[in-house]
Amino acid sequence: MPRQAAALKPIEKVQRYPLDAFLADIGDIGDIEWTSEPTDLKRRSRDFFWYSPILSEQLKDKLADVIVTPKDENEVIRIAAACARYRIPLTPRGGATGNYGQCVPLEGGVVLDMAAMNRIEWQKPGRVRVQAGAKLWDIDAATRPHGFELRMHPSTKRSAQIGGFVAGGSGGAGSVTFGGMREPGNILAARIVTLEERPRAIELRGDAAQKISRAYGTTGIITELEMPLAPAQAWIDVIVAFEDFIEAIRFGRSIAMADGIVKKLVSPIEWPLPQHFAAFRSFCPEGKCLVLGMIGDMSMESFETLLEPLRGSITYKAPADDSLGKVPLYEHTWNHTTLQMLKADRSVTYLQCLYPHDRLVDAATEVAKMFGDEVMQHLEFIRINGVMAANGIPVIRYRSPERLYEIIAGFEACGVMIANPHVVTLEDGSRYKRVDADQLGFKREVDPMGLLNPGKMRSFVPHQ
Amino acid sequence: MPRQAAALKPIEKVQRYPLDAFLADIGDIGDIEWTSEPTDLKRRSRDFFWYSPILSEQLKDKLADVIVTPKDENEVIRIAAACARYRIPLTPRGGATGNYGQCVPLEGGVVLDMAAMNRIEWQKPGRVRVQAGAKLWDIDAATRPHGFELRMHPSTKRSAQIGGFVAGGSGGAGSVTFGGMREPGNILAARIVTLEERPRAIELRGDAAQKISRAYGTTGIITELEMPLAPAQAWIDVIVAFEDFIEAIRFGRSIAMADGIVKKLVSPIEWPLPQHFAAFRSFCPEGKCLVLGMIGDMSMESFETLLEPLRGSITYKAPADDSLGKVPLYEHTWNHTTLQMLKADRSVTYLQCLYPHDRLVDAATEVAKMFGDEVMQHLEFIRINGVMAANGIPVIRYRSPERLYEIIAGFEACGVMIANPHVVTLEDGSRYKRVDADQLGFKREVDPMGLLNPGKMRSFVPHQ
Repeated sequence: MPRQAAALKPIEKVQRYPLDAFLADIGDIGDIEWTSEPTDLKRRSRDFFWYSPILSEQLKDKLADVIVTPKDENEVIRIAAACARYRIPLTPRGGATGNYGQCVPLEGGVVLDMAAMNRIEWQKPGRVRVQAGAKLWDIDAATRPHGFELRMHPSTKRSAQIGGFVAGGSGGAGSVTFGGMREPGNILAARIVTLEERPRAIELRGDAAQKISRAYGTTGIITELEMPLAPAQAWIDVIVAFEDFIEAIRFGRSIAMADGIVKKLVSPIEWPLPQHFAAFRSFCPEGKCLVLGMIGDMSMESFETLLEPLRGSITYKAPADDSLGKVPLYEHTWNHTTLQMLKADRSVTYLQCLYPHDRLVDAATEVAKMFGDEVMQHLEFIRINGVMAANGIPVIRYRSPERLYEIIAGFEACGVMIANPHVVTLEDGSRYKRVDADQLGFKREVDPMGLLNPGKMRSFVPHQ
Repeated sequence: MPRQAAALKPIEKVQRYPLDAFLADIGDIGDIEWTSEPTDLKRRSRDFFWYSPILSEQLKDKLADVIVTPKDENEVIRIAAACARYRIPLTPRGGATGNYGQCVPLEGGVVLDMAAMNRIEWQKPGRVRVQAGAKLWDIDAATRPHGFELRMHPSTKRSAQIGGFVAGGSGGAGSVTFGGMREPGNILAARIVTLEERPRAIELRGDAAQKISRAYGTTGIITELEMPLAPAQAWIDVIVAFEDFIEAIRFGRSIAMADGIVKKLVSPIEWPLPQHFAAFRSFCPEGKCLVLGMIGDMSMESFETLLEPLRGSITYKAPADDSLGKVPLYEHTWNHTTLQMLKADRSVTYLQCLYPHDRLVDAATEVAKMFGDEVMQHLEFIRINGVMAANGIPVIRYRSPERLYEIIAGFEACGVMIANPHVVTLEDGSRYKRVDADQLGFKREVDPMGLLNPGKMRSFVPHQ
């Protein structure tokens, strides 16, 4: 009997989908956990899209009809088969730490909560195989004793799941060395379940695994991932304060470009953003711009050597401590920089940018001149296609959608590319305004009816 | 008593230097090993300069007057003091695997053989401190059980010493990831002894350690080095065969630029060079150009994925085995590529180049068109200042010095920079035709009389 069967109340409004039939199907054999409690539906149909006032308005009323929590791949297959049979949308949900509503069910239906599929399947030197619902922090905790760690993680490492990261993320701490998730070699394999009446489980190895990367679960339900690991290092958290942002960028770039300096994070952050870094506030001098870093212990002396000719001073330096109960430095980088300010001031939002790597300082100077206090810049160094580049995650004082789009146009006029985080589709959120051709083609194979996370891959039109 | 005192024969020719007084000084207290046996003098005044017919002619008669082999830094200090007192040149000698006569005593005097100072002082995670005479292979053998290895090594790893590598080398296997020896962070510290009547031992840390990098021992006698280590990886040796060299370059570059693929070596090599790779000849198909690689085990599948769209085929793939008695794959890369051909054909020589990273394929095509069979190209991918670049070590069918200089001019016309390996001075061998200003200034402090390896730093003029 379904464990939460008691929660199934008579549904008074007209059902969008034949849920009773669906539940009867998946409940028939075993004990698949599900809920349709309104508070559950509300809480588990959301992610951190509220960073965007535009998405916040657009997505706030989107609700699943039922949340289903499979324990294993067999249950995933049964759920997928029932969704196919009754033409019910299915939207996979990981840790729900994303910012674009990637796990918000635009057309309702089933939200597939992967939290219970969190097993570490195996570890070998340099690689790990996990179920998609494993949390990044737990994976690191499991691999570190063997001398390895995930190559990269978002600032939401403590709650994000690996499946969600691969399905929606692009990179994070570690990408300054290994590049983003989409660089060849950063996903070894993915196992997916198709959305068909007779679902198939497919192993995608090597380049084929990229078919599920940043596809929001539209190209198959990810059940397992095989990820490459980095040798675990003794990381030193460091904060360096500078008089102005351009100096912070120059120093950050010199560290980013120094291949002899082992690093996981190089994040120049403009004042007044550090004003909101509560846990590290005493190390953030008033009015100063920062570079936050995670530096290999053996490289710390060289890091300080590169700082010598510049007018920067180290205000914090300590071994990285990622134990629960402590706020890690990395929770002030990537989109946590934005979050730290949002905690105090809900009137701000953010953008996602790629600064031109060959005129980084010029572009940052132009942006500062164009927008003044309305934009607070924040960069993350990251390798892209073998070149050291800088992502930007500026925090914006929000006035209106129109003004936000003016600001986007302004950034673009400065030569900064924008991946708009105020949209829900893969295409609109891409720097290239299109979805990967491989992914679109693959979707036809694995989700012919277009039931997986519908509305996210705009280019896809199911056959009638 | 000096152990080799019996070898001191009456020296019949007129002595250039007051050797008897020198030997009396260093023999006074302890037991410093030395020899002036003619066969020793001849054998231990040379390196692999004979790769260059020009240097071969120029250096073949250069001889030390005495070879001294210190056991510890105290002995180095006594030898240095005696050299200063009697104004005798001192040229440090490591494994003598260099190709520019860096340890050839142009003005005779003392050759300081560092072979007995080969102790591993200590290891910590990510770093090692060693005496300058430690062999690279021995350092790796000592650090691997602790999970680490040297970040980079030349193809002469089995006989090269760390002091000589730092004093004369530029990079090697590993530089495709960590860049060359001169990148910040790749030398943590160096301890040197000055050439003065009261020699000082100086610890150079961080950037200061670069004062002895590629200075041929002209800026102090290196006694100890603290080197950063890389986590030891399970490396896979791989050979990929291509129809033409341009395809090999394209594939090599795609691997070099893929930051998600862990690698230590990416070496495109033009046919007929592989014809001379005796130990791997059966894996080198007739007429095919190769890419030799050392790839992290966990990245091998991704490596093969990137090969799929290209017309290349893997002819060899096996875990790297660096045990003595086997010929390692890396002994076919860097300047061992040249050596393998020289073993069969002493009529060839080589150049050292930096190809333009943004028009690598064009430059290689132009070189091929300009010189045909006279030049056999060979590239080594290496990071320089944070950018993935390609060194070239082409093998040249030698005709005359004049023709060699025409070829150099031809390469330069194709946009390829040359670091001429047919010269003995630091300045002439530099891509920039000058010695580092820091090194020149530092030399005044540590070798005011210009007795350290005289003739190698052309810009230095001792005070009268």
